[in-house]
Amino acid sequence: MKKVLLASTALVLSAGVAAADMTLSGDARMGVNKVYGRDDVGFTSRFRAIFTGSGETDGGLAFGGTIRADNAGGVSFEDLNNDGFIQNNEVFAGGGAAGVAGSVFISGDFGTLTMGDVAGAPEAAVGDVAFISLTGLGDYNEMVYLSNYASSSRSAMRYDYSFGDFGVHVSADNPSNAFGTRETYGVAVSYSGDLFSAGLGYESSGGDDAVTGDSEHWAGGITVDVAGFQIEGAYGSASGDVEGDQWAISASYTWDATTVSAFYSDKTELELNGAQIPNAYEAWGIGASYDLGGGAAVRGGYANRSGGPAGEDDSFDFGVVMRF
Amino acid sequence: MKKVLLASTALVLSAGVAAADMTLSGDARMGVNKVYGRDDVGFTSRFRAIFTGSGETDGGLAFGGTIRADNAGGVSFEDLNNDGFIQNNEVFAGGGAAGVAGSVFISGDFGTLTMGDVAGAPEAAVGDVAFISLTGLGDYNEMVYLSNYASSSRSAMRYDYSFGDFGVHVSADNPSNAFGTRETYGVAVSYSGDLFSAGLGYESSGGDDAVTGDSEHWAGGITVDVAGFQIEGAYGSASGDVEGDQWAISASYTWDATTVSAFYSDKTELELNGAQIPNAYEAWGIGASYDLGGGAAVRGGYANRSGGPAGEDDSFDFGVVMRF
Amino acid sequence: MKKVLLASTALVLSAGVAAADMTLSGDARMGVNKVYGRDDVGFTSRFRAIFTGSGETDGGLAFGGTIRADNAGGVSFEDLNNDGFIQNNEVFAGGGAAGVAGSVFISGDFGTLTMGDVAGAPEAAVGDVAFISLTGLGDYNEMVYLSNYASSSRSAMRYDYSFGDFGVHVSADNPSNAFGTRETYGVAVSYSGDLFSAGLGYESSGGDDAVTGDSEHWAGGITVDVAGFQIEGAYGSASGDVEGDQWAISASYTWDATTVSAFYSDKTELELNGAQIPNAYEAWGIGASYDLGGGAAVRGGYANRSGGPAGEDDSFDFGVVMRF
Repeated sequence: MKKVLLASTALVLSAGVAAADMTLSGDARMGVNKVYGRDDVGFTSRFRAIFTGSGETDGGLAFGGTIRADNAGGVSFEDLNNDGFIQNNEVFAGGGAAGVAGSVFISGDFGTLTMGDVAGAPEAAVGDVAFISLTGLGDYNEMVYLSNYASSSRSAMRYDYSFGDFGVHVSADNPSNAFGTRETYGVAVSYSGDLFSAGLGYESSGGDDAVTGDSEHWAGGITVDVAGFQIEGAYGSASGDVEGDQWAISASYTWDATTVSAFYSDKTELELNGAQIPNAYEAWGIGASYDLGGGAAVRGGYANRSGGPAGEDDSFDFGVVMRF
Repeated sequence: MKKVLLASTALVLSAGVAAADMTLSGDARMGVNKVYGRDDVGFTSRFRAIFTGSGETDGGLAFGGTIRADNAGGVSFEDLNNDGFIQNNEVFAGGGAAGVAGSVFISGDFGTLTMGDVAGAPEAAVGDVAFISLTGLGDYNEMVYLSNYASSSRSAMRYDYSFGDFGVHVSADNPSNAFGTRETYGVAVSYSGDLFSAGLGYESSGGDDAVTGDSEHWAGGITVDVAGFQIEGAYGSASGDVEGDQWAISASYTWDATTVSAFYSDKTELELNGAQIPNAYEAWGIGASYDLGGGAAVRGGYANRSGGPAGEDDSFDFGVVMRF
Repeated sequence: MKKVLLASTALVLSAGVAAADMTLSGDARMGVNKVYGRDDVGFTSRFRAIFTGSGETDGGLAFGGTIRADNAGGVSFEDLNNDGFIQNNEVFAGGGAAGVAGSVFISGDFGTLTMGDVAGAPEAAVGDVAFISLTGLGDYNEMVYLSNYASSSRSAMRYDYSFGDFGVHVSADNPSNAFGTRETYGVAVSYSGDLFSAGLGYESSGGDDAVTGDSEHWAGGITVDVAGFQIEGAYGSASGDVEGDQWAISASYTWDATTVSAFYSDKTELELNGAQIPNAYEAWGIGASYDLGGGAAVRGGYANRSGGPAGEDDSFDFGVVMRF
């Protein structure tokens, strides 16, 4: 009797009728690029709408979440039987409505608990090194973590607690989903002081549908501000079905409205079940950003990769980014 | 000559340039759950953005509509030839842009006319009994109606008219869509007074693509507030290709910020062409909600089903819901 | 180290932190229609949310963009091997996040540069003739342009510059995308004066994945306001793999809150590789709109097509449109 008669029922079921705030924002970019595997320069553009909710309970707990319009819903595909075709039973609910994009959090004295498309603890504490470009150019400045290895059908939770300059982080990929049982866990510690900041994390994967098999991964990173430069370095070492070491370093420099950045990374040793993983490249890149004010910036980058599954190639992009 | 030259043409074509209001809101949830068919407890979370339009014509007609970001567009799949694969001609426009999600209405002294993903008249007047949980747990507190039996590619309209405590409701599923001719109609009356509220409805289905075949369905329900409890009961009786009786009952009690609710339903007799329908279960569930204020509430439930196509199983969930 | 430790890095990478404005609007419609190929009258409704960003750099450049919720993201399908099935490698990123819906622009004294789902230069300067209906009824008032022939996986850019009553327009479809190399270019001039407005354009297509093959197309159009009527005419002549002439004319008249419009078009001669293109119809239609005020209007139309691939048929619609 839900829709016409029983407004009273609706109220009963809607404890918490008072609503928190919801804001609309967005980002966009437009420019030219050459991507890996193509010889020609093309256009690239996008416009995205972002929704962010935030509120506070009577007891002082903060809560909120975020999603974009483009990944709010929709479907994801998993070729479960690897026949190259999409069967009816290989189509799954996706996006923020299914918890595999965006995120939701609740926060208080106990720390912050976040669910959705969230980084695992080591990725949150160690992360990646810096790179500036319009489109990412393959994201070879990013480290590989077990927790985000296959991201399309993944949801996760993370708990963060900070005291003074220190932070503790614990995470788990969703242990039970439509594809089976996943056991990917992570712990990490972080420090953020005046002279430098650093993170150290450990993660392990297993379970019936673990795309990274039974594996362990240690990762550490540091960021130092020295002589106007910001230097970032990260190192990771995996063993098990995922095997090998990876490292990356970057340097960034900002003056007035301009920031330039360069990185080098080597993930060529990373193997899954004895074969190089898809993005196991040695890569380097340079890029720059110039703030136009008002929410716009000119941005461009160049990246080169080699030693990986598809051989040496490069990519570049240049254009304008916008914030609304 | 539409985009550059002829702004005047655009104006001609856009009678009604003055715009009504559009508001942004949202909802979210995060928690843990165990679903039917799985042994393990997993995470569950989602974040959704909601858009609601409302306006009034110069003559005093109210109009508006609503859609969410996650079901605004996208595609739906129908395995028309039942071969398990998705062919090109089995992909259809979906979401609010195709009228199969969200809704649009116009309202005046004549009543209210609503189109889109709207409940049929009996469902609107009789509806379901109450249940509280984080995620729905199979929605076994809901009755089965011919009008919403297969909802993915369905659009419908409903007309509602109220006079005093009484309401009249008439509905039809879209009689002509991409899949063929559908003839599903419903009529209902409702009463909402101080002592109790009640509804009675009738619906019939037929046509070339009627997923429920040639069927009729009578349904009635009542809600009584007694001694602080809210008791809801619903009964339905179908004959034709869909055959059998169904009933459900619930009781809810609210004190301070807490509401508890329990339901029992029996749809085991419901058959389509001689076979139990997919959700023909005997089920019961209990749940509770505690309002945290500010738009958040803690909520959880337990539900048990048996007697249906997949045998006995249970599910539960617990977490936080949010309104933005 | 992106999410927890290094807020400073995020700032470095986010030159242009100050944000421009983002607004929410929407449109909707509800009514009845009979479409081509069906005998029955059905319902039609939709509700769409629209996001529009706009800002200005410190140097006075305007920038912005737009997308709807329904085409913000999602996937598109291309049956590359024409086997009727959808393979994994035939699913592509779509919507505004992939630049194939919505648009992004930057504008200044130099003119306006727009990218995304934008009309080619001839379409922008010449465009289509007028027609009023609830749903478009096949859009047979629209001319065929090489630049928009296959729109699902298409992105493009256009540059517009105006001086006094004159405008110059240059466009290109994305020359490098996931499907190969596309070489579709357009140039056009436009004039918009007190007595009349007019446009003249030229476009050519080619390249490995050009759906229109190696073709050229000249198009011109004029709009005249005479005795309270607005008369629009357009003519196009294509040669190459796309071959044939097309023309269309319309007349519109507005008094008080009412606008009526009628069109006639003949695209029957248009062939691609010797076969009539899918919408190579001779067509005519009439329609009217009545402004209800407050953002709503009553609108309806009738259209008839003949001489094309599927023979003669007609369609009509009637209902309410809304702006939020």
